[in-house]
Amino acid sequence: MDKRNEAYMAAQVAKIDQQLMALIRVTPRTKRQAQVIEAMRYSLEAGGKRIRPLLVLEFCRMCGGEETQAMSAACALEMVHTFSLIHDDLPEMDNDDYRRGRPACHKQFGHAVALQAGDALLTAAFEVVLHDPLLSPQTQVALLRILADVTGAAGMIGGQIMDMDYETRNDVTLEALEAMVSAKTGALIRGACMMGCTAAHAPESTIALAGQYGEKLGMAFQIVDDILDVTSSSDVLGKPVGSDAEEGKTTFVTRMGLESARAQATVLTQAAEKIVQQFASHDFLLELTRELLVREK
Amino acid sequence: MDKRNEAYMAAQVAKIDQQLMALIRVTPRTKRQAQVIEAMRYSLEAGGKRIRPLLVLEFCRMCGGEETQAMSAACALEMVHTFSLIHDDLPEMDNDDYRRGRPACHKQFGHAVALQAGDALLTAAFEVVLHDPLLSPQTQVALLRILADVTGAAGMIGGQIMDMDYETRNDVTLEALEAMVSAKTGALIRGACMMGCTAAHAPESTIALAGQYGEKLGMAFQIVDDILDVTSSSDVLGKPVGSDAEEGKTTFVTRMGLESARAQATVLTQAAEKIVQQFASHDFLLELTRELLVREK
Repeated sequence: MDKRNEAYMAAQVAKIDQQLMALIRVTPRTKRQAQVIEAMRYSLEAGGKRIRPLLVLEFCRMCGGEETQAMSAACALEMVHTFSLIHDDLPEMDNDDYRRGRPACHKQFGHAVALQAGDALLTAAFEVVLHDPLLSPQTQVALLRILADVTGAAGMIGGQIMDMDYETRNDVTLEALEAMVSAKTGALIRGACMMGCTAAHAPESTIALAGQYGEKLGMAFQIVDDILDVTSSSDVLGKPVGSDAEEGKTTFVTRMGLESARAQATVLTQAAEKIVQQFASHDFLLELTRELLVREK
Repeated sequence: MDKRNEAYMAAQVAKIDQQLMALIRVTPRTKRQAQVIEAMRYSLEAGGKRIRPLLVLEFCRMCGGEETQAMSAACALEMVHTFSLIHDDLPEMDNDDYRRGRPACHKQFGHAVALQAGDALLTAAFEVVLHDPLLSPQTQVALLRILADVTGAAGMIGGQIMDMDYETRNDVTLEALEAMVSAKTGALIRGACMMGCTAAHAPESTIALAGQYGEKLGMAFQIVDDILDVTSSSDVLGKPVGSDAEEGKTTFVTRMGLESARAQATVLTQAAEKIVQQFASHDFLLELTRELLVREK
């Protein structure tokens, strides 16, 4: 990424981080409540790439909107994403002890606190948009419809459910794998792009176009994730490599082979690039799209 | 309860039950997704008294609104209530195997499915109000602000967190116990009354009055629950009696003694009755309020 875009991205991520912390402001009344709020912050702070909130802000900006119009939607999406990671890491789900190189939320704070921190983050996601004084009720409802749709049983949560169905099976078809990823990973990324346009009051056709970009990017993102699981090192990833294969999980790599998976990620990224070029001042997002294909973690 | 009110209540509950089932309509794509949807329905169907949705419908009606205006809000509140029961029964929380005389959701469907059914119900609660074609965006936002506030870290979830803090302590003051109950049990009941008025476009002062009624009713409701835990039988309650005392939990009964708890529940119920009498056509709700004080389960 060129220096200017890199600095821009760092500045955007810093703004998102700051806003996320500012929005979690319940005054704790008991020791345990303080712990849950600390757990919410701990998981939000763990960072990651902040791709989803960045997409919200970028699509709003590219549609001619002000960044401030999109900030609560950006934070809401990151809260939903973080809630999903917390619950996904729990023993009854993926049972992961580490997340982004740090102990998972339930390892750090215990299972009950992690469960409740997830529940509270999901609720807070809706809350921040509902209490954003810069948004009209029309825009709040339009944003939250997208948020609820991409989060719920037909979106991300539905995808997590399908994922668990497939986890112990090696006979999952490519079509079924794509449907699962489209829901589990794709839905929130698609939602981010659409919510950014919605915050800027873009027309339906633009929102739909952004959704198509998100669909392609989300799929490419997951394929690259699957590739990194077999080609990267634990030090770089911040989590064990080869864990998918060990668990006998179907991934794009086990299904297509490494080379075909790489080719497929490239094709999807190029399709996403074509879409993004239809938007005004797309320089940063175009470079980010390419960067995500060649990322090392 | 007199025959007419009894028949009216049964009819209202039947309408709520029917609408709740109609609203869960994700077409399952995998066996596991079908299970999660079945788990959502299983827990919603388990019934209970449907007090919260009844309160939404009643306050809307008493404020001169149409029942149809309040139906999605009523269902949303029952979904949030059901989500909270599912997660509360999980081993990391209260670890209850039975709920309303049937196996708890996680005993019936497994822990992962129960976790996800809860998450999906919480999301669906927002979704049903956001997609209700009878409501204006203004009303949707006003309803969901109340819903998010009474559900989140400062409301019900915050109350559950405080409850776990207090569970193993017998030095909890009456004041702290009241604050916990006001959040854990009171918040959704208060929210129900306020959402009913909001659906009918009642003025702020009326919404606040309904909130005060809900506060008193919620507190009385929990005190009666605590009394029944020591005076009822497992057959009647559908769950083990004496479980609070066994766990060394602080309740209104352990804190105040049985007689003072009874007196306190009566005082609160009378205060709630006084408020409800300020609303038009309050006959049914007045009787329901009295009935909840003398209920046997």
